[in-house]
Amino acid sequence: MYYSSESVEELIEQLCRLPTIGRKSAQRLAAHVLKMPRSDVKQLAEALVAVKDRVRACRICKNVTDADTCALCLSTRRDHGLVCVVEESSDVVALERTGEYNGVYHVLGGAVSPVDGIGPDDLTFGDLVNRVAPDPKNPEAPKIREVIVAVNPTVEGDVTAHYLREFLAPYVSVTRVAHGLPIGADLSFADEATLARALAGRRPL
Amino acid sequence: MYYSSESVEELIEQLCRLPTIGRKSAQRLAAHVLKMPRSDVKQLAEALVAVKDRVRACRICKNVTDADTCALCLSTRRDHGLVCVVEESSDVVALERTGEYNGVYHVLGGAVSPVDGIGPDDLTFGDLVNRVAPDPKNPEAPKIREVIVAVNPTVEGDVTAHYLREFLAPYVSVTRVAHGLPIGADLSFADEATLARALAGRRPL
Repeated sequence: MYYSSESVEELIEQLCRLPTIGRKSAQRLAAHVLKMPRSDVKQLAEALVAVKDRVRACRICKNVTDADTCALCLSTRRDHGLVCVVEESSDVVALERTGEYNGVYHVLGGAVSPVDGIGPDDLTFGDLVNRVAPDPKNPEAPKIREVIVAVNPTVEGDVTAHYLREFLAPYVSVTRVAHGLPIGADLSFADEATLARALAGRRPL
Repeated sequence: MYYSSESVEELIEQLCRLPTIGRKSAQRLAAHVLKMPRSDVKQLAEALVAVKDRVRACRICKNVTDADTCALCLSTRRDHGLVCVVEESSDVVALERTGEYNGVYHVLGGAVSPVDGIGPDDLTFGDLVNRVAPDPKNPEAPKIREVIVAVNPTVEGDVTAHYLREFLAPYVSVTRVAHGLPIGADLSFADEATLARALAGRRPL
């Protein structure tokens, strides 16, 4: 034990378990907590537990929400015929920040990874197929025209994209976001995989 | 709002208020919290509040402790005639890690800073003087031989050291830890202030 207070040591221990927080950062955070007003600390503690108690997956798109259906799925100003498939809720945040996308989303909850034993059944593939496939009981339901695959450009992402095409192609047009040189990057510093993709994806000027 | 869950947004907001945690880190932490078991999140939340409820200043040295008196002040294996004065509890942790110090401590709770309006009365100067000054009611009390000033080598630290000498010199021998080149450093990269101190503090080889 370093600190002569067990409570402080316990807090440091707990903070160390979080990603990107080492012992030094945990010590600095604990020292800050010691100086914070009790009401602020209480608010933080309550926010932590509230996330576990209140947050659930949207009935339709599986994005995080406090309600039954998320605000994006309820919105009448979005194009519900266009579905963008992402791995995590944080990807939705990134796409929304562009302000360029007006469709809805589907959050898989991860990527297919045979190495880690994660198959389509461990993700929300089934819910997505149900969304896309025509419902014989409800033939008038709004139809999804296109599914945009926006999974990460990694090995797992590629496997996931492959599965998505297999599952969805019978019902709907499936596209994938472009890969290539990031804007503002220097071509000479781009890695081989990115350059190869940029070449293969070349388009008429 | 970015996330379609108010609880997640609220947690990110709360985490952003902590030092060294920006919005990106807060998002990553919140995403991790969403995946943590509820019991682990509850433990973290409780550890946060427990720190505010249980931790207090040691009756003697003002270091953080859960009890009335800290373990260092209670220890019979430490030299209670030697007191090392530091600014914060984290400084005690740093000194204890060396394993080279066997005395006890006094935590000031900060440094004297006229610019920020922090004077000796805002810190634990009074408690330190009471510890060091002979008690007429208890002339047999263990006497403190030496006070080692280990405040930070900053402007505020220097001002604090000056005040400490003024307050304590009548009762006890007051020393300050050495300043100079850090071990392993390159002389040509040392800043002028450090080099000047290293020169002024030269000792016979």
